[in-house]
Amino acid sequence: MGFSNGAAWMEGQIIPIKDAKISVIDWGLTRSDITYDVVHVWDGAFFRIDGYLDRFQASIAKLRLEIPQSRADIKHILHDMVAASGLTSAYVSMVASRGTPIIPGTRDPRACNNHFYAWVVPFVWVIPSEVAMRGAHILLAGGNTRISPQSIDPTVKNYHWGDMTNALFEALDAGYDTTVLLDDHGHVTEGPGFNVFAVIDGTVVTPKSGMLMGITRQTVLEICAELDLPHEARDVSADEFLQADEVFTATTAGGPVPVTRVNGRILGNDAPGPIAASVIQTYWDWHKRPDLINPINYGKAS
Amino acid sequence: MGFSNGAAWMEGQIIPIKDAKISVIDWGLTRSDITYDVVHVWDGAFFRIDGYLDRFQASIAKLRLEIPQSRADIKHILHDMVAASGLTSAYVSMVASRGTPIIPGTRDPRACNNHFYAWVVPFVWVIPSEVAMRGAHILLAGGNTRISPQSIDPTVKNYHWGDMTNALFEALDAGYDTTVLLDDHGHVTEGPGFNVFAVIDGTVVTPKSGMLMGITRQTVLEICAELDLPHEARDVSADEFLQADEVFTATTAGGPVPVTRVNGRILGNDAPGPIAASVIQTYWDWHKRPDLINPINYGKAS
Repeated sequence: MGFSNGAAWMEGQIIPIKDAKISVIDWGLTRSDITYDVVHVWDGAFFRIDGYLDRFQASIAKLRLEIPQSRADIKHILHDMVAASGLTSAYVSMVASRGTPIIPGTRDPRACNNHFYAWVVPFVWVIPSEVAMRGAHILLAGGNTRISPQSIDPTVKNYHWGDMTNALFEALDAGYDTTVLLDDHGHVTEGPGFNVFAVIDGTVVTPKSGMLMGITRQTVLEICAELDLPHEARDVSADEFLQADEVFTATTAGGPVPVTRVNGRILGNDAPGPIAASVIQTYWDWHKRPDLINPINYGKAS
Repeated sequence: MGFSNGAAWMEGQIIPIKDAKISVIDWGLTRSDITYDVVHVWDGAFFRIDGYLDRFQASIAKLRLEIPQSRADIKHILHDMVAASGLTSAYVSMVASRGTPIIPGTRDPRACNNHFYAWVVPFVWVIPSEVAMRGAHILLAGGNTRISPQSIDPTVKNYHWGDMTNALFEALDAGYDTTVLLDDHGHVTEGPGFNVFAVIDGTVVTPKSGMLMGITRQTVLEICAELDLPHEARDVSADEFLQADEVFTATTAGGPVPVTRVNGRILGNDAPGPIAASVIQTYWDWHKRPDLINPINYGKAS
């Protein structure tokens, strides 16, 4: 009962998160043939929801999924669902799945009942806030590489996380908070749920390919422009990353977060760096900009 | 009502397949942090179930999953579920999922409620039987490569199928029945749901790495030994595959199936080859071998 742990929208109904389930034979599960996006709600408003909707619709098109809901429908559903949940700081997921074949027994992905659903839970911190305060400790994954864009398009937000999970086990076992994966060429890509930035020779750099094009990553680049910080998207080698003056992460689920240790190296005397601090301050300040937020009308939950 | 479309075992209950669902926030879905195996039932008996259980348990260990059910429990559950379904030719799936974190909000895969479930549906032909009769037409995927073993261990049977699905779209759009993917080095790996064999200079060859170690693949290798056919597991280049005298697939969901066209090339005058035919004959003959089958007691459905 109640939506304090979260809610979901499925087949036209808003239901408690614990009751939100999909079939064990849905190809969204059995083939991970599914895409999603996550927008956050902060202080009662969506932040940059149109950017997330743009990406979600692009992902759906790239996977050749077709859902009955229009962009306006999705936006309306997300608003109503969050309003019904009563959550004013929240992690909001929208999902489009392949579904099951229209003709039972066929294995043709072109003829399936594609479907949309959404869910909301209390705000998620990919890196817990107490870790964010002292700065995260990151291990560059040595055991496995990030899935190559030649196999899976990383710009389509997806649930193919086996490489992330394996690297996360390696990092957690070694006492680190999280991990960042390298590609086949030894370039830095991303971590489980976040993009990365490094301050190298006074420039804020971030990988340019092989990872999700994060909305928070884009926001950080815009913040760099606003703050007159030199910034660049380019290939970043593991060595450069290890020798950076500052490192920080960026995710919808917690915003930018400083990193104080990478592998054995301690950055900035083990304290969050000044550039990360100013980016983080601006990021949260921007959550008051009327042009970037969409307030939720909690009174009109349908 | 009824189990004619299939059944599932979830949390101790046998239920209709349409009611078998998992949470939209289960990491088995949202991180594809899950492994499974598929054994088939033919003529009222499991075929080589111990081989499938061996592999399933190895996959669970490799993903560091821990489920409460012992091997004997799983075998018992599968027997009871299939008996209850009444299906005498069936596709039987056993699944172990990461579940959700024990402490809500944490993102540590080491502390989750791992869980097991199973389901059964009428026998599935990965390649439809009418296609198998004339021989399948295969397109070697040109648009994307198979996920590298450096990223995801392909010997752990998994739902990371985005590369398969993308290649399948390419093949189906071009009028082929299915696809086979190459690895980063241009070697043949596997298709969506099957291993591959090629007859090259009188030897039956099959890829040796970069794909699932199929139980049916293993059975085919044993059949080759039985039939005194030279056989070898080794790297197979795309060119060798295209120039092979015969090609055939191997899967639990349909057994070995002849291939008569690969890309533009027609093999053996467009008719299934003699070596494939003898392997297929022996494969189905072996379904009567008492040492390889476990008959299901349909009378004692619990």
